[in-house]
Amino acid sequence: MARDSSRRRRTVGTLSQLPWRQHRNPYGPIEVLNAEQLEKIHDASLRILEEIGMEFLDAEALALWRDAGARVEAGSQRVRFDRALILELVAKTPPSVTLHARNPAHNLTFGGDHVAFGSVASAPNVSDLDRGRRPGNFEDYCNLLRLTQSLDIVQFLAGYPVEPADLPPTTRHLDAHYAAITLTDRIWHPYSLGRHRIADAVEMMCIARGIDKARLKAEPSLFSIVNSNSPLRLDGPMLQGLMEMARAGQPVVLTPFTLSGAMCPATIAGALAQQNAEALAGIALIQLVAPGCPAMYGGFTSNVDMKSGAPAFGTPEYVRAAMAGGQLARRYNLPYRSSNACAANAVDAQAAYESEMSIWGAVMGGANMVMHGAGWMEGGLVASFEKLIVDAEMLQMMAEFLQPIVVDEDTLGLSAIAEVGPGGHFFGAAHTLARYETAFYAPILSDWRNFENWRLAGAKDTAQRANEIWKQLLAEYQKPPLDPAIDEALEAYVARRKEEGGVPAA
Amino acid sequence: MARDSSRRRRTVGTLSQLPWRQHRNPYGPIEVLNAEQLEKIHDASLRILEEIGMEFLDAEALALWRDAGARVEAGSQRVRFDRALILELVAKTPPSVTLHARNPAHNLTFGGDHVAFGSVASAPNVSDLDRGRRPGNFEDYCNLLRLTQSLDIVQFLAGYPVEPADLPPTTRHLDAHYAAITLTDRIWHPYSLGRHRIADAVEMMCIARGIDKARLKAEPSLFSIVNSNSPLRLDGPMLQGLMEMARAGQPVVLTPFTLSGAMCPATIAGALAQQNAEALAGIALIQLVAPGCPAMYGGFTSNVDMKSGAPAFGTPEYVRAAMAGGQLARRYNLPYRSSNACAANAVDAQAAYESEMSIWGAVMGGANMVMHGAGWMEGGLVASFEKLIVDAEMLQMMAEFLQPIVVDEDTLGLSAIAEVGPGGHFFGAAHTLARYETAFYAPILSDWRNFENWRLAGAKDTAQRANEIWKQLLAEYQKPPLDPAIDEALEAYVARRKEEGGVPAA
Repeated sequence: MARDSSRRRRTVGTLSQLPWRQHRNPYGPIEVLNAEQLEKIHDASLRILEEIGMEFLDAEALALWRDAGARVEAGSQRVRFDRALILELVAKTPPSVTLHARNPAHNLTFGGDHVAFGSVASAPNVSDLDRGRRPGNFEDYCNLLRLTQSLDIVQFLAGYPVEPADLPPTTRHLDAHYAAITLTDRIWHPYSLGRHRIADAVEMMCIARGIDKARLKAEPSLFSIVNSNSPLRLDGPMLQGLMEMARAGQPVVLTPFTLSGAMCPATIAGALAQQNAEALAGIALIQLVAPGCPAMYGGFTSNVDMKSGAPAFGTPEYVRAAMAGGQLARRYNLPYRSSNACAANAVDAQAAYESEMSIWGAVMGGANMVMHGAGWMEGGLVASFEKLIVDAEMLQMMAEFLQPIVVDEDTLGLSAIAEVGPGGHFFGAAHTLARYETAFYAPILSDWRNFENWRLAGAKDTAQRANEIWKQLLAEYQKPPLDPAIDEALEAYVARRKEEGGVPAA
Repeated sequence: MARDSSRRRRTVGTLSQLPWRQHRNPYGPIEVLNAEQLEKIHDASLRILEEIGMEFLDAEALALWRDAGARVEAGSQRVRFDRALILELVAKTPPSVTLHARNPAHNLTFGGDHVAFGSVASAPNVSDLDRGRRPGNFEDYCNLLRLTQSLDIVQFLAGYPVEPADLPPTTRHLDAHYAAITLTDRIWHPYSLGRHRIADAVEMMCIARGIDKARLKAEPSLFSIVNSNSPLRLDGPMLQGLMEMARAGQPVVLTPFTLSGAMCPATIAGALAQQNAEALAGIALIQLVAPGCPAMYGGFTSNVDMKSGAPAFGTPEYVRAAMAGGQLARRYNLPYRSSNACAANAVDAQAAYESEMSIWGAVMGGANMVMHGAGWMEGGLVASFEKLIVDAEMLQMMAEFLQPIVVDEDTLGLSAIAEVGPGGHFFGAAHTLARYETAFYAPILSDWRNFENWRLAGAKDTAQRANEIWKQLLAEYQKPPLDPAIDEALEAYVARRKEEGGVPAA
């Protein structure tokens, strides 16, 4: 007698939510390219790398390529590659990587049919219904970390949820990392902006887990996104960060920033060919630095509004590109990253339908890592407290959709159907009562009351209800336990590095 | 050099929208049941029909079943069936049906990989931002027909978009049918509430198309939804309508009203088994009346909120049931109907995310007919003018998602990538300029302006923008052409039938 144990709810404070679990996609991805189309894009991307090449704005990276036999153009930073070299290097990447959180219950595997959802990341602004839209700051940064920790469906920190721009740039990452480690017990993401920030993240994560760098290499904890400066360029700070991550054995997600019509051709096929070229070249460099280092393939192709140049997300082009990106990643046995993106300016219907399109594109595109899972608005310019709650509900619904239907004598319920008979009802049936608590998904945000009851309760729309929920979660937030000795060591590290002046100013 | 001709836009009044087309799903459906699970549900549903049986509240239907060899319980309306009888009858149903609109450009095929989107149907109330929520009436009924006619993505009338409750019940259908025929040139839907309304619809559609009943049988125009009174019952008026439709060769969509936890077991498997039993028994009766008559399999399984009993839609259970329903329909080679359903009370984020879940469940569940495609709210209690526009945008996005990616030398754009080179941009490239007008999906509702421009333009949310769009569409509405002689004949038919008193009062 199978019973769906996954449906047991976890109650944090007064919010009943789905329990933490590693989600899997049992249905297999949607394939929007046929085999021939996939090979054409594969071939075109290798022709791009052979014939057009790519710029690496870093002397060390150029030297590595030269030594590996790539053709570095004299007096330039342009590199051209034989396809065999690229494919041989990419093939060294493991098909899957498990990242180790400081709380092992929050480890996550990226690869195969696994899918994990992350927070909003890297927004310069922050917004909520009470205080409106404002520049990023450390207080909001910390509150967004607390909300991530409170919501089991937001499984990892995808970056700084908002830029804490009120902190000095040279030491900002130290405070940001310390907060990520202490306010959450989840996987987090340091920025690949030069080697020093990565080096500090590695040191701090070793302290947090009480391990050395060899063990951190064997059991990676950190990941970092590297966006190529499309078209066909990787800049110096990104490359330095990428190489530092590779040396530490921590995975980089190589995500070309290919907005179709602006940074790549105004066709999905052209955008994908260029995305694939940039992703493969970056991943190949990781393998050149550290053969066998985990890495991931990131897809972020969307399109601009051709009239205004404004970026658009969750569009029909975006969804198909997200799914095709998954096919490309799987062609090379690479874990795949996609996003929950939208362009909307308000937490309204557009925000929801654009995000739903992105979430379906990601999950049914076979993404293992869904960046910007909760809170992303305005094409990434704002982290919204209310959107974070709306997204959490949408992600929970998707996670439940991924639970296979249980079909057995008990769930088929023929005895209940016989007992109730034609024209009866099932409210009071024993079969129903036995499932009263766990039969169906219970929402955190959706309001299913009838119109009259909803009106009497204040006719609150979804954004207003989300506003109440995030405040409740913050009021009930509890810091995850941390050994005081580790906390002290982390504080001491931050203090010492601040005294040293942090990282060199850009 | 392939160019995507489907992207050419149609401009109606001042609104630029996707052109009319018969949509197809090139990607194949998502299968949430494995083969063994599908067979278990199939078998359970036949056991229900064999062992528990179903009630048919109509003497004529009972006589038909008795003559066919089914076991009619003495002194009762309960019928039990051998599985061979049911399967043999169901197998007579054609796998696909083309419905003929009075404008042949708006014919639609239901079956195979075709998918068509219909209007909201059967709401008792109507709502818009200006006038709020009010009971259904003929003026709003007509305006919702005009909007359907104005939006090419809303391809057929799924029923009365709202009940014109201010018209007398015995003649209401005559005015409703006349408006459907004259204000639109689309396929429409008479209600199976007794035989007389169907008979009037058949007569009026023959007049509208200038054909006789034999030709209408060969080229059907009408469809009707029959919801079984779950559990396991079909009422008299529905059965009379169903049989009249079958005799006229017009398809009925047999859609069990299986709300899990109320009208069927509180498990997806049990709900599907019961849905399948009811759908197969109803379709079998159609074939008993008129072997080879087109018919469709409808899936409407959702769940109630176990705490309040309130129906929920677009839930994770709903989506999986919609997709599993498609698998069941395809098992019997039947066209499949699903819906765009939501429970939300406002045109907000919840309305959009519940509807997106339903739309993905329908389209990727392999539905051929999507009922309630545009305007459905509150679990069907309201037709909303603003939601209709939000849905039209979501359906257009889904339709564009279904356009296969074109991969050829031209779209791969390697010459453009070479021309632009590393670090450049594609705005001015010839490859981009050649696609300026048609490269990407252009929304009717989504606002992609940046926050500052959006704020300066009044910070209108999606519902407010939708409000402006439907008013604009109504102001620009043009009645589709109709031969004045046909119009006169229709008017005369309505006048005569009104003089006769319409249909017998219930």
